[in-house]
Amino acid sequence: MIVTSIPLVNSDRLNRHIAQLAQIGKLPNGGVSRVAFTREDLLARQLVQSWMLDAGMTIRIDAAGNIIATYAGSKAGAGALATGSHIDTVPVAGHYDGVLGVIAGIEIVRVLHENKLVLAHPIEVIVFTDEECSVIGCKAMAGNTVDNPDYYRRNDGTPIEECLESIGGDWSKIATAKRNLGEIAAFVELHVEQGGVLESTGDAIAVVKGVVGQYRHTVTITGRPNHAGTTPMNRRKDALVAAAQVVLAVNKLGVETPGEQVATVGYLNVLPNAVNIVPAKVELKIDLRDLSQEHLDNLLTKLKQQLIQIAEATQTQIAISQVLHVLPTIAAPKIQEAISQVCQQLNLSYTYLPSRAGHDAQEIGRFTDMGMIFVPSRAGISHSEDEYTSPEQCTQGANVLLQTFFKLDRLYST
Amino acid sequence: MIVTSIPLVNSDRLNRHIAQLAQIGKLPNGGVSRVAFTREDLLARQLVQSWMLDAGMTIRIDAAGNIIATYAGSKAGAGALATGSHIDTVPVAGHYDGVLGVIAGIEIVRVLHENKLVLAHPIEVIVFTDEECSVIGCKAMAGNTVDNPDYYRRNDGTPIEECLESIGGDWSKIATAKRNLGEIAAFVELHVEQGGVLESTGDAIAVVKGVVGQYRHTVTITGRPNHAGTTPMNRRKDALVAAAQVVLAVNKLGVETPGEQVATVGYLNVLPNAVNIVPAKVELKIDLRDLSQEHLDNLLTKLKQQLIQIAEATQTQIAISQVLHVLPTIAAPKIQEAISQVCQQLNLSYTYLPSRAGHDAQEIGRFTDMGMIFVPSRAGISHSEDEYTSPEQCTQGANVLLQTFFKLDRLYST
Repeated sequence: MIVTSIPLVNSDRLNRHIAQLAQIGKLPNGGVSRVAFTREDLLARQLVQSWMLDAGMTIRIDAAGNIIATYAGSKAGAGALATGSHIDTVPVAGHYDGVLGVIAGIEIVRVLHENKLVLAHPIEVIVFTDEECSVIGCKAMAGNTVDNPDYYRRNDGTPIEECLESIGGDWSKIATAKRNLGEIAAFVELHVEQGGVLESTGDAIAVVKGVVGQYRHTVTITGRPNHAGTTPMNRRKDALVAAAQVVLAVNKLGVETPGEQVATVGYLNVLPNAVNIVPAKVELKIDLRDLSQEHLDNLLTKLKQQLIQIAEATQTQIAISQVLHVLPTIAAPKIQEAISQVCQQLNLSYTYLPSRAGHDAQEIGRFTDMGMIFVPSRAGISHSEDEYTSPEQCTQGANVLLQTFFKLDRLYST
Repeated sequence: MIVTSIPLVNSDRLNRHIAQLAQIGKLPNGGVSRVAFTREDLLARQLVQSWMLDAGMTIRIDAAGNIIATYAGSKAGAGALATGSHIDTVPVAGHYDGVLGVIAGIEIVRVLHENKLVLAHPIEVIVFTDEECSVIGCKAMAGNTVDNPDYYRRNDGTPIEECLESIGGDWSKIATAKRNLGEIAAFVELHVEQGGVLESTGDAIAVVKGVVGQYRHTVTITGRPNHAGTTPMNRRKDALVAAAQVVLAVNKLGVETPGEQVATVGYLNVLPNAVNIVPAKVELKIDLRDLSQEHLDNLLTKLKQQLIQIAEATQTQIAISQVLHVLPTIAAPKIQEAISQVCQQLNLSYTYLPSRAGHDAQEIGRFTDMGMIFVPSRAGISHSEDEYTSPEQCTQGANVLLQTFFKLDRLYST
């Protein structure tokens, strides 16, 4: 079908629903606590499903507990154009992370439904299970879950089997949650930036270039404990002096290498950590992120060379071991192009950004075309009660999502 | 009196007594635990007093619990030539720290006694109370105790009044423990080096130039916590990057400034210390030691200038506050000269060293002439079960102490 007018989302309803969802798990200071599988998460899932039904969608829950709401398309057998995000939160959260993508997805379908519009492709709005901790929902959809259920046991000891059962999933059938390119032709996720770039550039929208890949490494530096009084400077093997050089090398790699990588030492622990003892041992953790796996590998190679030099210079032993590796997911160029055209049509200023945080779209992008739309986060703050995106900004993001779906409906064959 | 022969200490007895004392508080791996005021400390004090009596000395306990054994001199009213150290230990210790100075002091008197030799000056052998923790013994003798008894309360809550009573002292009369220049003409302490310099130079003896002064400061660096993924490098205020620069600045100050200073960051704590959060805050502690107070002040001034530069460069706030200041104590030049002459006479190779650890002599040196003699510590290890100084090295140290007393008896007027 061909759309000739430009329908817009209902801004009041969109922002009312965001505020309504924030009542479930509301904290005294205005934030939200709605950790996956808690009573609050279950209540929120019920509320969201009621809105999906109001929007004319049918609902199924897959084995991973993902809520999949479908708005039928006109062409039989066409793969879905999907959107969505998550409604679970970190223990102390704001109103927007994840929620915006889910509510906006429902809202665009509701607008279509109210206007009696149907796309050629079916539309899916997905609420992914537990994005903030295990990421089990989107991982299951990509067929990338870990076989051992103990891996997913909650911190309080609750088995994942029990968790999934409580939301209508079924651990024993987790493999059935896997989707493929034929079922989902494209996935577009609207999300708050969670960084401060849009606020500083003054742009309304970021066309996301992809979700960065990530390396995490633990570095262990072994020196020699000595009395900080009686040991002359030239007889020391000071693990903290070596660690300080590592921290600065990592930072320099992030700051001075051409590119958009980030490189962080967020964790550092000194042993024995006594004012009068030359540090014997330091353990620190390095986080490296970039959109290009090749670039990440180059950074890591450089870093390892520098660790060898630092170990020699400080007479310490330095060991590095990988603890996490997530491959980057590039946003499909034609989805990026569609989003940027929509921004132009809607007269919204936009820029291109990598997503440096993980998202459900990262996993979905492993088996089908993926795109993401960011709206600004005030002061770049997220995972905090101070997280804020204005109603107008939320509406702008939802409108970009809606128009992008019209475009993708034409771009993707049915 | 004039001494014409060169009497030597009884090496077997000296080392047997060291080994015997190590039986009290003996640990399974061969070390010793004899913390001040414990049952072990009390037993050791009894044993040492029996040896003092055997050596022909009279004993008194002052209000601080210091054991003061006196071997009478020939000139009435002469101030004492004093020696000694401590027999309390850190919770896991070796056999030599403190003990050598006490046992050698008793041994040199015993040799005099056996040879029916008497110096013009009386000799005092002092066991100072609790050198390893509160330093209350030598502080009381220098009149430098803190008035508030809570300051001295033990970690287990025991009041200092009770502790002192258990060893024959009396907190209410602590001021009476104060000595002066008239009573103690000079104090010489024999001690293990607790560092690795003598082992590496191959010298038998170090003539100590003085006990270093010390500054301890806490530095607090405040940055801004941010998501380590979503925050571009140029938008960070990374407290750990600033802290790393501080650690290296402190080390450089120690390594590159001409002089014998040591400069250490032994303690560093990161907040929130999470791999995915740009560090918000770092607290670290700096230890600076040198023989010259003026040099220490210059180092501190330089350091503070660098902290200002680092704060500017990293856009962090850096605060520094002093938590400890100990003034250096210079060893009396004529005692240093006497010790070096004795080494030449005994054909023992020697060098000059600062003592970078605190000792009872540091406090005694605040009101009278002080000197120290160091013997080697294997691998520079102390405050450890692996602490070791060979019987021969202990004997050499005791002989230097004995001969130094002969010299000082002539050098100091009676």
